[in-house]
Amino acid sequence: MRFCSQCGAPVELKRPDGDTYERHVCQACGEIHYRNPKVVVGAVCTWQDRVLLCRRAIAPRAGFWAVPAGYLELGESTEEGAIRETSEEACARIEITGLLAVYNVVRIGQVQLFYRARLLSPEIAAGIETLELDLFEWSRVPWHELAFPSVEYVLRRALELRDHAGPCPPALGP
Amino acid sequence: MRFCSQCGAPVELKRPDGDTYERHVCQACGEIHYRNPKVVVGAVCTWQDRVLLCRRAIAPRAGFWAVPAGYLELGESTEEGAIRETSEEACARIEITGLLAVYNVVRIGQVQLFYRARLLSPEIAAGIETLELDLFEWSRVPWHELAFPSVEYVLRRALELRDHAGPCPPALGP
Repeated sequence: MRFCSQCGAPVELKRPDGDTYERHVCQACGEIHYRNPKVVVGAVCTWQDRVLLCRRAIAPRAGFWAVPAGYLELGESTEEGAIRETSEEACARIEITGLLAVYNVVRIGQVQLFYRARLLSPEIAAGIETLELDLFEWSRVPWHELAFPSVEYVLRRALELRDHAGPCPPALGP
Repeated sequence: MRFCSQCGAPVELKRPDGDTYERHVCQACGEIHYRNPKVVVGAVCTWQDRVLLCRRAIAPRAGFWAVPAGYLELGESTEEGAIRETSEEACARIEITGLLAVYNVVRIGQVQLFYRARLLSPEIAAGIETLELDLFEWSRVPWHELAFPSVEYVLRRALELRDHAGPCPPALGP
């Protein structure tokens, strides 16, 4: 950040009165610009003990498998965001059944919330960010071709909870 | 947002190619500026079946009672953020024992994560954002003087789980 988004003047890094951290502060209008972590929401969706995975058409990690997930938008709840991402990436309708994990990726400023969900029908289709997709039996999950550590993490958590219906304590990791 | 924080030129609202939503896009350098919900982290902290509440010294809702909570910063995990807020507002050291609730406040673009925590000692003191603070027996919680609906929500959830040690399914609400 180099310029104030409110007035266009240059910003400088300084610690506002009473604040613990340095912030980008406008030299002209005094506006303090906070930078904050972003929320990613996703869903591990199953249909009759098979799990929905999408092969990514876009960077990062194009060609690798993931669960539907993406940035939370303003104007939606975390559950609504996970439902929207699943609709966009897999053209699938789901019902959320619980929170599976809160996964912090501090290095890139992300808080990832993964829900457990039930597909309302087995009708799925690749959205524009998806190369292909499928409902995998657990024994056939492509563990070595997953896009991100968090995808493996939530899939293993969902597999552990496979026979446990209803709300569950979310894994807090890493 | 009116100006590009990268180059200082005016931004316009338009829908980027392949995007579902309108964004602030720089007319000069093309930078897309996303606006995202913010994460608030807090903790319901107990010592021998008494719960820590702080009376707020700052707006909004100055003079009303809340649990330690505030915006997550870049460079920290959600658990670390809850520990830091408790340290800043109540000069207290805690150990987090589980996630209590994910509370969406969509209208103001906040995702609030509240943890359950154990005070490591009963030594507490008001930080600069706190007028006074105390460890309340559950029967003496000032239910009608709480700062926010989410504070009541997580306190009621913590009260329900009072006799249940260890990780618990977080409430997903509202």
